[in-house]
Amino acid sequence: MPSSWGKIFRVSTYGESHGVSVGVVIDGVPAGLPFPAEEIQRDLTRRRPGQNDLTTPRDEEDRVMVESGVFEGKTTGSPILLKVNNKNTIGADYDEMAHVFRPSHADYTYSEKYGHRAHVGGGRSSVRETIGRVAAGGLARVILKRELGIETIAWVDSVGQIDSNIAEPQFPPSREFVDQFPTRCPDKNVNDQMETLIRKLRDEGDSVGGVVKAIVRNLPPGLGDPVYDKLDADLAKALLSISACKGFEVGSGFSGTRQTGSIHNDEFYLEDGTGKVKTRTNNSGGIQGGISNGMDLVVRAAFKPTSTIKKEQKTVNDQNEETVLKAKGRHDPCVLPRAVPIVEAVINLVLIDAYFYQRSLQPKWFLKYANLDNIPNQ
Amino acid sequence: MPSSWGKIFRVSTYGESHGVSVGVVIDGVPAGLPFPAEEIQRDLTRRRPGQNDLTTPRDEEDRVMVESGVFEGKTTGSPILLKVNNKNTIGADYDEMAHVFRPSHADYTYSEKYGHRAHVGGGRSSVRETIGRVAAGGLARVILKRELGIETIAWVDSVGQIDSNIAEPQFPPSREFVDQFPTRCPDKNVNDQMETLIRKLRDEGDSVGGVVKAIVRNLPPGLGDPVYDKLDADLAKALLSISACKGFEVGSGFSGTRQTGSIHNDEFYLEDGTGKVKTRTNNSGGIQGGISNGMDLVVRAAFKPTSTIKKEQKTVNDQNEETVLKAKGRHDPCVLPRAVPIVEAVINLVLIDAYFYQRSLQPKWFLKYANLDNIPNQ
Amino acid sequence: MPSSWGKIFRVSTYGESHGVSVGVVIDGVPAGLPFPAEEIQRDLTRRRPGQNDLTTPRDEEDRVMVESGVFEGKTTGSPILLKVNNKNTIGADYDEMAHVFRPSHADYTYSEKYGHRAHVGGGRSSVRETIGRVAAGGLARVILKRELGIETIAWVDSVGQIDSNIAEPQFPPSREFVDQFPTRCPDKNVNDQMETLIRKLRDEGDSVGGVVKAIVRNLPPGLGDPVYDKLDADLAKALLSISACKGFEVGSGFSGTRQTGSIHNDEFYLEDGTGKVKTRTNNSGGIQGGISNGMDLVVRAAFKPTSTIKKEQKTVNDQNEETVLKAKGRHDPCVLPRAVPIVEAVINLVLIDAYFYQRSLQPKWFLKYANLDNIPNQ
Amino acid sequence: MPSSWGKIFRVSTYGESHGVSVGVVIDGVPAGLPFPAEEIQRDLTRRRPGQNDLTTPRDEEDRVMVESGVFEGKTTGSPILLKVNNKNTIGADYDEMAHVFRPSHADYTYSEKYGHRAHVGGGRSSVRETIGRVAAGGLARVILKRELGIETIAWVDSVGQIDSNIAEPQFPPSREFVDQFPTRCPDKNVNDQMETLIRKLRDEGDSVGGVVKAIVRNLPPGLGDPVYDKLDADLAKALLSISACKGFEVGSGFSGTRQTGSIHNDEFYLEDGTGKVKTRTNNSGGIQGGISNGMDLVVRAAFKPTSTIKKEQKTVNDQNEETVLKAKGRHDPCVLPRAVPIVEAVINLVLIDAYFYQRSLQPKWFLKYANLDNIPNQ
Repeated sequence: MPSSWGKIFRVSTYGESHGVSVGVVIDGVPAGLPFPAEEIQRDLTRRRPGQNDLTTPRDEEDRVMVESGVFEGKTTGSPILLKVNNKNTIGADYDEMAHVFRPSHADYTYSEKYGHRAHVGGGRSSVRETIGRVAAGGLARVILKRELGIETIAWVDSVGQIDSNIAEPQFPPSREFVDQFPTRCPDKNVNDQMETLIRKLRDEGDSVGGVVKAIVRNLPPGLGDPVYDKLDADLAKALLSISACKGFEVGSGFSGTRQTGSIHNDEFYLEDGTGKVKTRTNNSGGIQGGISNGMDLVVRAAFKPTSTIKKEQKTVNDQNEETVLKAKGRHDPCVLPRAVPIVEAVINLVLIDAYFYQRSLQPKWFLKYANLDNIPNQ
Repeated sequence: MPSSWGKIFRVSTYGESHGVSVGVVIDGVPAGLPFPAEEIQRDLTRRRPGQNDLTTPRDEEDRVMVESGVFEGKTTGSPILLKVNNKNTIGADYDEMAHVFRPSHADYTYSEKYGHRAHVGGGRSSVRETIGRVAAGGLARVILKRELGIETIAWVDSVGQIDSNIAEPQFPPSREFVDQFPTRCPDKNVNDQMETLIRKLRDEGDSVGGVVKAIVRNLPPGLGDPVYDKLDADLAKALLSISACKGFEVGSGFSGTRQTGSIHNDEFYLEDGTGKVKTRTNNSGGIQGGISNGMDLVVRAAFKPTSTIKKEQKTVNDQNEETVLKAKGRHDPCVLPRAVPIVEAVINLVLIDAYFYQRSLQPKWFLKYANLDNIPNQ
Repeated sequence: MPSSWGKIFRVSTYGESHGVSVGVVIDGVPAGLPFPAEEIQRDLTRRRPGQNDLTTPRDEEDRVMVESGVFEGKTTGSPILLKVNNKNTIGADYDEMAHVFRPSHADYTYSEKYGHRAHVGGGRSSVRETIGRVAAGGLARVILKRELGIETIAWVDSVGQIDSNIAEPQFPPSREFVDQFPTRCPDKNVNDQMETLIRKLRDEGDSVGGVVKAIVRNLPPGLGDPVYDKLDADLAKALLSISACKGFEVGSGFSGTRQTGSIHNDEFYLEDGTGKVKTRTNNSGGIQGGISNGMDLVVRAAFKPTSTIKKEQKTVNDQNEETVLKAKGRHDPCVLPRAVPIVEAVINLVLIDAYFYQRSLQPKWFLKYANLDNIPNQ
Repeated sequence: MPSSWGKIFRVSTYGESHGVSVGVVIDGVPAGLPFPAEEIQRDLTRRRPGQNDLTTPRDEEDRVMVESGVFEGKTTGSPILLKVNNKNTIGADYDEMAHVFRPSHADYTYSEKYGHRAHVGGGRSSVRETIGRVAAGGLARVILKRELGIETIAWVDSVGQIDSNIAEPQFPPSREFVDQFPTRCPDKNVNDQMETLIRKLRDEGDSVGGVVKAIVRNLPPGLGDPVYDKLDADLAKALLSISACKGFEVGSGFSGTRQTGSIHNDEFYLEDGTGKVKTRTNNSGGIQGGISNGMDLVVRAAFKPTSTIKKEQKTVNDQNEETVLKAKGRHDPCVLPRAVPIVEAVINLVLIDAYFYQRSLQPKWFLKYANLDNIPNQ
């Protein structure tokens, strides 16, 4: 069950809900960096359930523990183990589902793949697995900001039929602003409609899907590779590797396929004052030929409705009998608000690995774009 | 420039338009398999330009050569080098573009990344890179068919504003049927509209995008992994790694985000006669929790309009001057028909690697699902 | 600081002496295997310091904790985190050495590589890192024994000038027999001489090196690859990756270079009764062309004398001044006895990965050699 | 059959004697470097058979062809395919051996592993595989020299019972000096004895082994990693991955195990004038804790006698019958002279990958040690 990511900044997560802890080992971290424990904790707190009544009422504390790789507040260059202990959450709710395959859930496929059920909290399919990635993503975020000025910001773009229309790059101004809205859709009016819909569905025992949009600012040109490890290909994998994600777009995405080249192409111009090469439109979403072009990176990720619902559904059990399931337990009626920090984390993990790879092979690029003052003597 | 793919069935492509050859080294091929040289050639011929007047008139012969790894018609277990020689196609058309960045092309990003232009045929961004992947995909296709019965079929789902409505799994019946239509959209009426549109845009020096859809039949449950190397995540990366691809969907994709869980969930039932576990709907697109569930796998990939067009466009050059470009040369007004075999190839490459990984770790699964009679004694 | 091993059975260790814990994440473990917690604990206890007066008197309890990947006594297929908590062992002994480079130790090279000292317990160079590998090796050992009957046994072959002459394959009969000797040299007479030497050097504040020899029994032919991942090449890396290892031999090793081919070659014959292909001599050490040949695998590993000694040594400090060091603290005067279980562990890690890779690519080989009854239904 | 090497500067070889060509794809080469085609050809010529009457009389021309990754004399950043065409060398000599397992050769193990013989030229076990590595090693050599001043020099240290006693670092002065001696043992007297022995054994149809020694000069401190990817562990794997290599030593190797720590330890001092940290002895062989320490790197590799000899040997065939073999064909009576450039090549491949990895993670180290003037603008 490959659980690792990255060529150089290498992230390996472990843990299921039913074990002692979930976490991550991060290898390939330069030595001598100030370790941002508080920033990582803040990111973990953002993904935590129980933040408001729109998400699952399970209240997990999620205190991050650093078991290796940091000494006297600095990274040592060794693998960093970050973990969060599990509480014992296995209850009667799960026992009931132990032998019934939840529709559109990973129960059946786990059973066929491994010969056993992973009903207890969903095994590795549990969204708790993302704790490790959010923690590692927090470290990546801080390094990217210090050395290149990069900022990744995600928000909820739509829930069910309710669309927002947040114009970038003016919006959203910051992660803090996004967090002021319970749905993490930073438009007061749309947020309120979404809240109403989510509460209604929650009360009906139902769920709903939606779309997260993210931009990355201050991305220098030159990250990503022209063939397999294209920046957009790696981002697509990163986003699709989040539970419930069913679609990915960069830039104009599916709507761009409707256009002609003469309309779709992003014409280049020289920015007044700086002389920097810019494009007038950004249908490319900041990536051309798999490589960042210096414009804002823009991606969207589709999340299906939560599959575990309290409404009655027809299904089969592990004795090969047809049956009926009415799920119990605590489940998010809409994963979108909590998906936002996870989307940011996996984007930052892709970017830092592309950055470390690029600076290995093209060191003059590094000297041109990185802020050397913010890189500790080594 | 990482150009490799796969954990076990490992594919590494090389080559640019301006070099001697393009091709692929395939490592991790079992010994003793009959080598399907003709089937591979057929796949390469399907991706070749110049097949009809909808695609670029460059006529490349693309004869595959086998330089290692095959002896007396059988694989030896050694790396297999497959290659196609380049013709010398560098002409005045390209010289003109040598110092001008084509809008929405990889020229500018290459320049910033590597400090040099890759104007001659697009460097590794050239669609010729896919020759290696199509050749390797052909080998994968034959092994998957023999050992598991798997069949991957892709077709053009839309071009510009023109949508088809091909119902699967009845349609399309076969790759041969798809190939009867110049656009590779296997609906006579829709194909004709698409042909008209593409010809019109070609004559105007313009281009248009579209969507390729693919299904995989007879996929056993159990392929793919629950976390990073989810089957859909690997497919997303594979498809986005094709030039001009800007979006990916599995199953209900973006439209599924509009629905409630009670409508979207795929209820399980037992198939009459076989007793097999099936789902009534297939919004999951054949994948649940990152693992195949035994239903048809269904994915869609968005391709933007070809960026190289003959209409005049504003841009800048490598002397940091604003200028105007009117591209010459031969370019596909619509990449969709030729994208079809490439999409099939990268899907088959993802599937065979997931299969080889799964049979390594869960050999009893292998004994249950594989056709042992079609696996040579080793 | 790459800390991972293996293509399929993938082992990633983490941890330093000064952190909270040291341990390992094992990915690529089949689901449904009985988890041998007690066998793993036994292996860890064998590598523990403080077992007798020949080794460092530090008494570490080294209780292994399983934080993920095991449920109700069976592996789930998920990454398995095994760890051992550190006691707080940082004392004045280390402070004294904080700014002085110990001769032949990793202090100076760490400092040049990372820009910081790893004086506290040696950072990742600490032999505590091997806890993770011994734990993972224990799991590998049990799987190899159940599925293929393989047994790996190591012992101390020489200490300083004192050589043993243990004839394999009769000797040593078992790991239990080896453990009856404090030096782990299973020859009473030689063991006693070694004990005397080690005690004498310990009392003088000095140290001594030696050689560990290991054999692997019941290894089927066919493991290892012909080119880079040759079985002996992977074993060489595995053994050299243990601290203080400075040399490796397989089969006749350096002494074989003195011979002619006609004497050195291992002639084949058919074993009476079984008809199995065997060799009369075993100068190949069980490996020909990088691939196991069914004979006992035989390797030797050279360990230099412990570099931290209590005798006065000239050296320099991190202020670039010449100085004199007389190390304090508790250190093994001879690492050999404790190296034995570590050598076994890394050999088993190499073998299991070669096995999983081979059964992926050549499944008919698997059907021929593996004991299918001992592989759980999956 | 994994045939790849390296994390960043990634080398993948392909090819067998019976195919069209043998060669290598090198990925992870920075763009903009002058491509040293002639230097690479010179390295290939050094490993070529037929150079004098001590080696196999097969005269292979071994002209390297560059099929991708180089444009107008400079690397493009794309994968570089280097290859050498095979001549058709399959003759009656091999047919005779088609069904008989050569003692101590890879015939039998290949057969058990893959279910087929690789008798024609030894398949991937053929020393022709090293053409790819020598070509890639030549590129690595030139980059290491330009950017860090590193020089790797190997020579024959012993043949059979005949030892040389070349003192480093004064000797050998250069690769050119080594090449003046037919045995590549740069001591006239010893070379002559070796020549006599090799000719005698050749005439008897026999063979003999020996040891290659290598040093690396001007290696900066800081290359290699403290745990798995220790510089000496990677070198051990690299050397053992060469056919016929059966042993490896770094620094004092096996002889160091005889000593006490107080004698073996390399005391540090400050070099007069430069103030550089040096060691008085070099038992560490330039590596401490897996990381280079700035002293000369010193390794030795043991090569067994060539297994294919013309003397009669007892063996078995692939019909499970005992038989007798008297090999025909042209074989090196002693591989040592030709092993020298191969040893240099694999060492340089290990070093360049360690360098690229280190400069990725510790860029300030790079700014301190690399010659920036020799790195092209990118």
